[in-house]
Amino acid sequence: MKLSILGCYAATPRTLTHPTAQVLELKNHLFLIDCGEGTQVQLRKYKIKFSRICHVFISHLHGDHFFGLPGLISTFRLLGREKELHIYGPKGIKEAITLMLKLGNSWTNYPLIFHELTASTPQRIFEDDQVYVETLPLDHRVYTNGFLFHEKIGQRKLNMDAVGKYKVDMAYFRKIKSGEDITLDNGQVVPNRELTFDPPKPWNYAYCSDTAYKPDLVSALRDMRVLYHEATFLETEAHLAEKTRHSTAKQAARIARDASVETLILGHFSTRYKDISSFADEARPIFQDVLLADDGRQFEF
Amino acid sequence: MKLSILGCYAATPRTLTHPTAQVLELKNHLFLIDCGEGTQVQLRKYKIKFSRICHVFISHLHGDHFFGLPGLISTFRLLGREKELHIYGPKGIKEAITLMLKLGNSWTNYPLIFHELTASTPQRIFEDDQVYVETLPLDHRVYTNGFLFHEKIGQRKLNMDAVGKYKVDMAYFRKIKSGEDITLDNGQVVPNRELTFDPPKPWNYAYCSDTAYKPDLVSALRDMRVLYHEATFLETEAHLAEKTRHSTAKQAARIARDASVETLILGHFSTRYKDISSFADEARPIFQDVLLADDGRQFEF
Repeated sequence: MKLSILGCYAATPRTLTHPTAQVLELKNHLFLIDCGEGTQVQLRKYKIKFSRICHVFISHLHGDHFFGLPGLISTFRLLGREKELHIYGPKGIKEAITLMLKLGNSWTNYPLIFHELTASTPQRIFEDDQVYVETLPLDHRVYTNGFLFHEKIGQRKLNMDAVGKYKVDMAYFRKIKSGEDITLDNGQVVPNRELTFDPPKPWNYAYCSDTAYKPDLVSALRDMRVLYHEATFLETEAHLAEKTRHSTAKQAARIARDASVETLILGHFSTRYKDISSFADEARPIFQDVLLADDGRQFEF
Repeated sequence: MKLSILGCYAATPRTLTHPTAQVLELKNHLFLIDCGEGTQVQLRKYKIKFSRICHVFISHLHGDHFFGLPGLISTFRLLGREKELHIYGPKGIKEAITLMLKLGNSWTNYPLIFHELTASTPQRIFEDDQVYVETLPLDHRVYTNGFLFHEKIGQRKLNMDAVGKYKVDMAYFRKIKSGEDITLDNGQVVPNRELTFDPPKPWNYAYCSDTAYKPDLVSALRDMRVLYHEATFLETEAHLAEKTRHSTAKQAARIARDASVETLILGHFSTRYKDISSFADEARPIFQDVLLADDGRQFEF
């Protein structure tokens, strides 16, 4: 699992700070998460292949999370894209994007498929044989979803010593890896747990931005390993966080601690702060394993 | 008159080339002309004061000329703007922008005034005591206007020698500068042309992008001093220019020559060309005084 941060700053794009966009690489998918103005340029800068992006997840319809989408969709057209592009985002996104394209008489020559979201409870919005994606409704000034990206649990690993001991024929390996017990020629049943090891723990990633401090996220995040949680403000500006339905670094750390995630990544920093290391300083006493997003930074798990 | 090129490349924004946007400074106005994605970042980069921009002119609704507008309008709001902002552009621009803002529940806290254009003949769309702006309908794939920016002719300059000779009282100077003749105490009428010099020739600027070669622009451009004309292609790609309703450098030079402008600025270059100097090479045999736009370049007149 690899996370590439294209932009992680709040509000307006600047020369050196970009609004929210990130790419999650999970089981050969490249999922684009949010798409602030300038995202297509950031994708070029970090040499992320446009054609590998087939799914775009938009958390909410504030400009710093979606004003880059009309341009990205248009550029895909200009580059001769043929593959489907799926857009997941709040209701209204289809009307906005199609209007922008219609005005320029610039319909896509590839299938552009919108999945509009309105539910106030978590929904599974994408699934294939290797991954699935669920929404996690957040608490912001407009309708907003977080997204939970999950690898599916892989096949069990053969214990070759045990398989050798029972002289199990290769023809059964596929069944064994999928979890089945085996009946030997003499009628003895060998339970699967004797023949296999657990598969590697699947990776998963929770994206929670933008949101006010929302303690009831914790139950939904309990099995998540990596959590990106917004921290627009420090506690010194907690009154602004409350007013604008954002979180502080301390609040994000509490969510991470209470959900027992393995790693917390903080992002969506207000550009009022000169040095983002203060966000880690504020979070670490509550949750040790904190990392800071920054434009261009990549995290490999 | 000062022209700041923020972006002058066609189609998609890239790390080092920006889609169309430029700022014309004329008589204390800063007119923003077109607003491709990333324009607000370019404005910051070149330290152009956001608050001085009160009029935005959008030629047409292709993304590379207007996808930066929702973000710019939002940023003005975040910066606490109170002054009116006037947007001139093709019909549909109001619906698109207001929908984008409505979805984010992000209405402006300053007056945002749309002037939607539909006419197929030139219109005067802005005027004050010092400048006026007219449209110039172009020939592109969608409804497109060029814009002609004019300084008004200033007051005539007093010829102090003549004024002294006729012993004209200072009380008449204002009338004389506005062009009136003077009747002396002895009844003699002194014609204004004896008392004054012509005012400086007013500056003006014609913006023509995007457009196919359109020879009937020439009559409208006859009195223009500086012409920005798109040159998306070189003659080697004339078939693409024809097909996409763009111009070649040679065609732009013909327009400049036939309209007898003083200076031609070429822009809107396709990013297929590695070295834009070829555009000047192609234009110069037809029209000598050719300049090349480039992102970040400023022209002072």
